[in-house]
Amino acid sequence: MKQINIGLIGLGTIGTGVVKTLQQNRELISQRIGLTFNITKIADLDLATDRGISLADYELTTDANEIVNSPDIDIVIELIGGYDKANEFITKALNNKKHVITANKALLCLQGKKLFELAQKNRVNLLYEASVGGGIPIIKAIKESLQANRINSLYGIINGTANYILSNMSEKNISFLEALDQATAKGYAESDPSLDVEGIDSGHKLVILASLCFDTWIDYDNVYVEGISHITAQDIQYAKELGYTIKLLAITKEDNDGIEVRVHPTFVPQHHPLASVNGTFNAVCINGNIIGETLFYGKGAGELPTASAVVSDAIDIAKNMRNNEPLFSNYHNREYKNIKSIDKVSCKAYLKIMVEDKPGVLAQIATILGEQQISISSVIQKEEVGGTVPLILMIHKAKSKNINAALEKISQLSIVRDTITVIRVEGEA
Amino acid sequence: MKQINIGLIGLGTIGTGVVKTLQQNRELISQRIGLTFNITKIADLDLATDRGISLADYELTTDANEIVNSPDIDIVIELIGGYDKANEFITKALNNKKHVITANKALLCLQGKKLFELAQKNRVNLLYEASVGGGIPIIKAIKESLQANRINSLYGIINGTANYILSNMSEKNISFLEALDQATAKGYAESDPSLDVEGIDSGHKLVILASLCFDTWIDYDNVYVEGISHITAQDIQYAKELGYTIKLLAITKEDNDGIEVRVHPTFVPQHHPLASVNGTFNAVCINGNIIGETLFYGKGAGELPTASAVVSDAIDIAKNMRNNEPLFSNYHNREYKNIKSIDKVSCKAYLKIMVEDKPGVLAQIATILGEQQISISSVIQKEEVGGTVPLILMIHKAKSKNINAALEKISQLSIVRDTITVIRVEGEA
Repeated sequence: MKQINIGLIGLGTIGTGVVKTLQQNRELISQRIGLTFNITKIADLDLATDRGISLADYELTTDANEIVNSPDIDIVIELIGGYDKANEFITKALNNKKHVITANKALLCLQGKKLFELAQKNRVNLLYEASVGGGIPIIKAIKESLQANRINSLYGIINGTANYILSNMSEKNISFLEALDQATAKGYAESDPSLDVEGIDSGHKLVILASLCFDTWIDYDNVYVEGISHITAQDIQYAKELGYTIKLLAITKEDNDGIEVRVHPTFVPQHHPLASVNGTFNAVCINGNIIGETLFYGKGAGELPTASAVVSDAIDIAKNMRNNEPLFSNYHNREYKNIKSIDKVSCKAYLKIMVEDKPGVLAQIATILGEQQISISSVIQKEEVGGTVPLILMIHKAKSKNINAALEKISQLSIVRDTITVIRVEGEA
Repeated sequence: MKQINIGLIGLGTIGTGVVKTLQQNRELISQRIGLTFNITKIADLDLATDRGISLADYELTTDANEIVNSPDIDIVIELIGGYDKANEFITKALNNKKHVITANKALLCLQGKKLFELAQKNRVNLLYEASVGGGIPIIKAIKESLQANRINSLYGIINGTANYILSNMSEKNISFLEALDQATAKGYAESDPSLDVEGIDSGHKLVILASLCFDTWIDYDNVYVEGISHITAQDIQYAKELGYTIKLLAITKEDNDGIEVRVHPTFVPQHHPLASVNGTFNAVCINGNIIGETLFYGKGAGELPTASAVVSDAIDIAKNMRNNEPLFSNYHNREYKNIKSIDKVSCKAYLKIMVEDKPGVLAQIATILGEQQISISSVIQKEEVGGTVPLILMIHKAKSKNINAALEKISQLSIVRDTITVIRVEGEA
């Protein structure tokens, strides 16, 4: 049986999962595709730690150059993450005409254009199903299953850590910091959790998804990114009262004015399928002009779900190798398109304003909102908390620019205490 | 730009959707794949009805033989449904070395082995993404995205009509017949609804999915099929009280004893993602040994969602045509495997037994269940209804064979009125 030689760079969590998968399902995969995968070499700086798998059959090295330069290796799997080293190894591998598989969303977000064009030039594949949504086959769905569609919008819960924290805050009525502590204790959050909770990781992944959806290249700098660290247990309770769940959504939409790309905490109606995606699960909801709405749900991270994605890429490459042609890609056709600045994005929104409990407060605030053509759809005013009360306003669709202008004026009112919370609403019919 | 010629057989709902899709997204698709689709000829017995689309650009015929025999046509799309004629045209097209796309689940269920082997022999593709789950790209997901996995189980809501009826019964607390009437009025049910409500359509689709999941061929005769027409509003209310939702599930699992393939109304825990799939939506939940649980959700039918699937197949074929090789398939490797008879399937279950309201009734019934090693997990006994009361029992996992043996004995008790309802439970952790 024909043998495909794999070089694996990075034997961390996912790398170990890939080795396990290729060991455990070796025979099944060979039966299915009529080819055998052979891990020729594994590179990692740490070759001492016990990963709970036998490495006896593999050549090990601490120098990844031995992999990217080896004439025997067909497919290089890069799973070290990070930026410079990964970039260097992938670039070398592509130039040496090796197919590459990576889960490195930060690198693809920032250097995707260069790397995909390099793959194209060298007539090899650069596949990355594992870079977004772990086990959810969302990249292939967009690239292949939805090819007949003009995509209208994509909404994703694509960071499991942030989703775990928000779900936990909602379920237990606890603060962000308490929920973060619990996530850290369970191993769901890194010691520096900012990539996850500040929306940066979701932003990287959104760049990859939006570029695919709209056949374009998107710069991370054009993505509006806002995290969840300022969300309070109180916001979540108000959301519930109003019929919503707060989720960190990655959102992209295209209309005649351009493309929106944004990551922020979002009020999602409770009946929306994304509202019931809890814990570390991920989900992506896509609306296409032919297919309508479709949703993909599964584990967003983890050793094995992500390994499943990496190995499915390897199988795609292997199936295609006999054709001596890269898998079809349209990266050469992509053009930069207009990206809307967040100022021009229109949303319904939730506003929480801490105000002095005095007559006429609502009138003053409503007047300022009215001056910016913002109308109020509902109001909740709760009992006094030491003379200061939260005033909750749901406002109809308005441009971020107008909302910000109004809030700047409102925050200068003498009756207003504390900063104002704004959370956008999405997913309503 | 290279042109791919399509012959379309059947200009019903989906056929019209395919024409609309290729008209509306023509330029976008060409940009993406660097090829143009050209509908060379359309065959339908009815060429008079206005479908709301312009057919001026197409050659029309009432004789599908003109399509399957045309030397100019690359891809034949069969959308007439039914059996004999579709079988004849697809067979001819494959023998004439044309790629074929079909949405015909009944035909693939019954003649899949013959047709796939014929495609393989003629080195052409026979694709069928539209046959199950309309717009949900579940076939490609199993064939490609999950290829690294041994599939453990698949649960699907794959008939929109039945799901609409059950959702509606649950929401409005109405009877099966009332809900069926409403489905018919909305155009969701055919004038003869038995294919949908008796589970037969789900059974056809399950044969296709299970064959793919387990790399085998499954005979429809080996599928246990039970519909929803005997489900009452009362059953649905009891399900709610007990924390479940009733869904018509298509279920397949493999273990060392063989493969289960069954379609029946099922108690699904309310927190399970499938429990909140309502109306005409479909969803499929797959558990793989590497990926864990993943769910696909979307419109299960309809002109455009299904057309999206048909056209995505056409794009896959077009991308692959330059390779002069069929897309990779492992149909030649498939072998028949052992299918478990329903007798040997073990499930938790809900039993509704109408009994005379007398002391000692529960004891008599519990004794008979005990004789069959069936233990009771909970009991609900409601107030009297004319001397007869419903006795609701949830039983722990037991083989269907034992449950049936016990029920036969119980039904002979003088205190038992009416037939006994049994609904299996699935989806619990």
